[in-house]
Amino acid sequence: MSSELNFGNLSVSIFGESHGAGIGAVINGLPSGVELDMEKILDFMARRAPKKDGMSTRRSEKDTPEILSGFYNGKTTGTPLAAVIRNTDTRSQDYGNISTEARPGHADYTGFMRYKGANDPRGGGHFSGRLTAPLVFAGAVCAQVLEQRGILSCAHILAIDGVYDDAFDPLDVSTELMERVKKAEMPLINEAKADEMKARVHAAANDLDSVGGIIECAVTGLPAGIGSPMFDGLENRISTAVFGIPAIKAVAFGKGFGFAEMRGSQANDAMYMAGDTVKTKTNNNGGIFGGISSGMPVIFTAAVKPTPSIAQPQQTVDFKRNKDAELVIKGRHDACIVPRAVPAVEAAANIAILSFLV
Amino acid sequence: MSSELNFGNLSVSIFGESHGAGIGAVINGLPSGVELDMEKILDFMARRAPKKDGMSTRRSEKDTPEILSGFYNGKTTGTPLAAVIRNTDTRSQDYGNISTEARPGHADYTGFMRYKGANDPRGGGHFSGRLTAPLVFAGAVCAQVLEQRGILSCAHILAIDGVYDDAFDPLDVSTELMERVKKAEMPLINEAKADEMKARVHAAANDLDSVGGIIECAVTGLPAGIGSPMFDGLENRISTAVFGIPAIKAVAFGKGFGFAEMRGSQANDAMYMAGDTVKTKTNNNGGIFGGISSGMPVIFTAAVKPTPSIAQPQQTVDFKRNKDAELVIKGRHDACIVPRAVPAVEAAANIAILSFLV
Amino acid sequence: MSSELNFGNLSVSIFGESHGAGIGAVINGLPSGVELDMEKILDFMARRAPKKDGMSTRRSEKDTPEILSGFYNGKTTGTPLAAVIRNTDTRSQDYGNISTEARPGHADYTGFMRYKGANDPRGGGHFSGRLTAPLVFAGAVCAQVLEQRGILSCAHILAIDGVYDDAFDPLDVSTELMERVKKAEMPLINEAKADEMKARVHAAANDLDSVGGIIECAVTGLPAGIGSPMFDGLENRISTAVFGIPAIKAVAFGKGFGFAEMRGSQANDAMYMAGDTVKTKTNNNGGIFGGISSGMPVIFTAAVKPTPSIAQPQQTVDFKRNKDAELVIKGRHDACIVPRAVPAVEAAANIAILSFLV
Amino acid sequence: MSSELNFGNLSVSIFGESHGAGIGAVINGLPSGVELDMEKILDFMARRAPKKDGMSTRRSEKDTPEILSGFYNGKTTGTPLAAVIRNTDTRSQDYGNISTEARPGHADYTGFMRYKGANDPRGGGHFSGRLTAPLVFAGAVCAQVLEQRGILSCAHILAIDGVYDDAFDPLDVSTELMERVKKAEMPLINEAKADEMKARVHAAANDLDSVGGIIECAVTGLPAGIGSPMFDGLENRISTAVFGIPAIKAVAFGKGFGFAEMRGSQANDAMYMAGDTVKTKTNNNGGIFGGISSGMPVIFTAAVKPTPSIAQPQQTVDFKRNKDAELVIKGRHDACIVPRAVPAVEAAANIAILSFLV
Repeated sequence: MSSELNFGNLSVSIFGESHGAGIGAVINGLPSGVELDMEKILDFMARRAPKKDGMSTRRSEKDTPEILSGFYNGKTTGTPLAAVIRNTDTRSQDYGNISTEARPGHADYTGFMRYKGANDPRGGGHFSGRLTAPLVFAGAVCAQVLEQRGILSCAHILAIDGVYDDAFDPLDVSTELMERVKKAEMPLINEAKADEMKARVHAAANDLDSVGGIIECAVTGLPAGIGSPMFDGLENRISTAVFGIPAIKAVAFGKGFGFAEMRGSQANDAMYMAGDTVKTKTNNNGGIFGGISSGMPVIFTAAVKPTPSIAQPQQTVDFKRNKDAELVIKGRHDACIVPRAVPAVEAAANIAILSFLV
Repeated sequence: MSSELNFGNLSVSIFGESHGAGIGAVINGLPSGVELDMEKILDFMARRAPKKDGMSTRRSEKDTPEILSGFYNGKTTGTPLAAVIRNTDTRSQDYGNISTEARPGHADYTGFMRYKGANDPRGGGHFSGRLTAPLVFAGAVCAQVLEQRGILSCAHILAIDGVYDDAFDPLDVSTELMERVKKAEMPLINEAKADEMKARVHAAANDLDSVGGIIECAVTGLPAGIGSPMFDGLENRISTAVFGIPAIKAVAFGKGFGFAEMRGSQANDAMYMAGDTVKTKTNNNGGIFGGISSGMPVIFTAAVKPTPSIAQPQQTVDFKRNKDAELVIKGRHDACIVPRAVPAVEAAANIAILSFLV
Repeated sequence: MSSELNFGNLSVSIFGESHGAGIGAVINGLPSGVELDMEKILDFMARRAPKKDGMSTRRSEKDTPEILSGFYNGKTTGTPLAAVIRNTDTRSQDYGNISTEARPGHADYTGFMRYKGANDPRGGGHFSGRLTAPLVFAGAVCAQVLEQRGILSCAHILAIDGVYDDAFDPLDVSTELMERVKKAEMPLINEAKADEMKARVHAAANDLDSVGGIIECAVTGLPAGIGSPMFDGLENRISTAVFGIPAIKAVAFGKGFGFAEMRGSQANDAMYMAGDTVKTKTNNNGGIFGGISSGMPVIFTAAVKPTPSIAQPQQTVDFKRNKDAELVIKGRHDACIVPRAVPAVEAAANIAILSFLV
Repeated sequence: MSSELNFGNLSVSIFGESHGAGIGAVINGLPSGVELDMEKILDFMARRAPKKDGMSTRRSEKDTPEILSGFYNGKTTGTPLAAVIRNTDTRSQDYGNISTEARPGHADYTGFMRYKGANDPRGGGHFSGRLTAPLVFAGAVCAQVLEQRGILSCAHILAIDGVYDDAFDPLDVSTELMERVKKAEMPLINEAKADEMKARVHAAANDLDSVGGIIECAVTGLPAGIGSPMFDGLENRISTAVFGIPAIKAVAFGKGFGFAEMRGSQANDAMYMAGDTVKTKTNNNGGIFGGISSGMPVIFTAAVKPTPSIAQPQQTVDFKRNKDAELVIKGRHDACIVPRAVPAVEAAANIAILSFLV
């Protein structure tokens, strides 16, 4: 179902439009009796909020979710957990022209064709990156359920505009590192890269342009044997969830496209006994074989395309009048959405992983 | 569901083990009354069969599907279409040791953990690449339904071991090119690359090793407006289906990871009117915005890891006895499965695309 | 998924607890561009609201849904339509003892076991009949989509405590009759039965007891050929949706259990041509053969058990303390919920029927 | 999906047509490592086979399933379990006229409209009662998984043409009784009723007519707390599965339609402690409250309409030529299918119940 993840006994349904009354999520299939720390959920969501460093929009998004159901006496009830986030500070007049001229790189035209012109076009409507707020909420809830089972996840900026952070060591992703990355202003393993990345973003912004990047995510603590072969395993569910984030255009596990230039003798992860535990000497496969976890960290990357909203004039069409047009997008937009997409990728992974455990 | 694609009103369920009695597929939700040309289905499946050039196993796979239901008087009935492929020429003795020693890069250990040792280990069992035969069958059926609606797909080898074929022109993928590629001994756009690729494969085989690669797939004729935002759009369904093929470790749409080094002004696909039709001047987004088709060719790539079965001694574990082991894999194996995975990727795309149209 | 209807391309997800912050529904898969008349939706929901005649609780339920998304410029957008109904006038103190003593006939004990004591017990929590408010909302939305395609539905009280209304003529259910029934204070075909039914309800109430009944529902205008054989046809989807209403314990199509005493020559619906249209001379099968509509009215009945909440002392258990107990239920409760369940049954049918058409 | 049950992590997909090459089932989501006794499966299926007493068709159905996958070394593998039953003794010439004249009470016309004339009409095609053979196979497999967890089920003929068997004691359904019923020539609790029932069937057959009936099913050993509220609980899944059996027109839990004439004080099942176990003094609710098991036996009934195929001349239409017609059905048909539907109802229940436990 379009805006729902339906994974075995777990589902997450996302609703809302950027400039409508509110957005939200309904989570079905959570285990009952799990304590949820609302502060931690808000902390998780704050990682997605716009920053003050100029990398993100100046729009103030409070984004505080109100939980309507499924949460009682500080614990999950096991029945549907619903939360709503009100839309408040929106300036629809900035979007006055989008209903007739397609913003290149956005879904204005495809959405118009899909919904025969009836979808809410303001601010991208249901296609807006704002819809990642309820996704992040749902992922933050799942994170707590996972954490209580010893499973942790962490995403970071692997690259912005060609500037690369260090990658996770796929053999050993420590809890300390994960916690540090989550708390950082820029979610980086090598924080020294922050300035260079910011410089690239600012340079693009100065050019009325935007930049893309790569996000890497690790999941630790997942025991061996979780997942399934063929169409409903770890790779299928994770990719389905991650491609649900606007601007994600590629998902790769382990070495991903790097496998194309490897030989089997390099790519195969040799195995050994570490005490009673089976481990692999390398982890090129990102902790997944045949859609099932190996017990090693699950590692994947996702490509984020440059923010489509740029302030330069762009050639486009007025799709209601069927004629060419030149568009200058007004409004406030991030020159780089990679930092804000980091918690969304992590959230998507959390939902996918938890779905195998409930 | 693990070995099922459940996409809206269409489902494909795959069953079987490499060395069991038979493998097969059940397709639910096909439109009724669609003529199927069995010769074309067998031609499609033959593209997956082992070649005589040494790139593939010498095992003779007849793989002729018997249609048991859903096909009457030369047409689909609209009720479930089931087909079975018998397993015949199998030599289980070659696999005598796999039930105790994990083949690195394979799902032997993860499958053992997932199924508590009860799954059929012979030849990889349900994890075998052989399971792509019914997938290809299902994709070949879907291809004919799509073709009657003017939608064509074609996959080719984009790279083997660092040797690259030309990529599709994302603005114009001609029917002639697609037909030529499908009929070629090696599915390449630039056939002159065949020898160099084969040389790489043979070199790896001589080294008792294997190589990986990249497959590119294009779909033409899909009108604008097909798909959905968030979790059940073109990218989600295509990636779910393609990750169902063993050895696929990455899926990317349009420029994919290349977006990480692009600016928005380059990445956004400027739009224009071509007569009454909206087109884009570039097609970096692979014909998809917000999970929905733009009317331009849908283009994606998938990474294929090197065949895990190599004849070199490998460090591994005996996961029943919990001890280290050195494994030499016997049996017959492809040094490169990329060519055989090409029709599987195309088949997966066909199923995903058709699911939006029924 | 527990509190979701997932029917092909349509889904309805219901959330909330009786005494939580709010209840609501998310509808996915609605066609875009359908005008919705909010007044008609509120009229539909008002049919479910408590009456002033003593048959229903005196609790004032405003139950005005706030639409958060999926509705723009008076039309459906095609993206998820979400609505929230706030819980306001609730008196939790009346339910002080329910968290330890199971109310017989309710799901207190089974819910406790299912959710290991973590579910919200106040007023039945997620099991409350109050959850039919968002179901009725969703069904009211679907009704408008159906109506624009010439499909109408209507449910009425067929029986309360052994007093029977006339049944629909299964060969001809007129629009006028349907409209009259929907507007009536008691939804009856033969309004003369209202007094006798009310008398039964009042008699039961005087005895600190409650009564059950039967609801009949008709759907007209559905063309022949809608549905599917086996597990996902009209009967499967309608029964799944209708059994989602608390207190429904049986669903029957056409003659239902009456078939058990019929012969084939009576039960088969002889067919004839009415002009160009195939019709049946009788409609014992409720307009459904093999899970597929015949073009005749779809007719089904559903049994409603007596309200479990009665003011008499009842033998029960304290399921936390594992001991016998005698319970006297306080609070305000309907002595008969059949009238209020009527629009819920109709709503469930609307959702099920629409799911085959989108 | 039309011919699939998709229940949480378990799915059963049924395929085939009455006179095609074969019919079968694919079961996904079975636990791994469960021993299956093939003899018991064949015994279960034999209960569905035609009897020699004249109550069933004289057609010899061998119906021996060949398991193609998912079963290895005597145990389930956990991967898809597929089985095929070949169609052998079919006499299509008896059905020469069905493609143009609709058999009243059958799905000939509705199937024609649904599939635009492309479905296989021979012997009812995919709508045939023969499709219950793979359903019964799947239910027989599930029965063994359930049995190993202490859960037993048993269905019997509750009524044929107004002659009633004793009902199960809803408070106590003994294993001995269940075993006796399953082995009986006629599945009855009170075997003395067999002759009277047979007499009714023979009388109908002599009149070139047929009779209907009621089947009752009990499930014991299910612990309290299994199921879910609203749309995906015990009642929803059981009814969905049971309505998948051709000729079933009603499903009722516990007192079912009898609730319509009960008062709450009678209908509520008073609760008490039996040692450490919560029990109910009556079991009017069929062991289900709020879609969740109470620990008492689950009891439901299903109405079976009279066999539509009768040898009398019937008024019908030729739906290809759009004209009235008189039809005399040839071929061999059961005058009463109730006995053969008994194991199908039990099988459907087994699948539904197991789906909550995997």
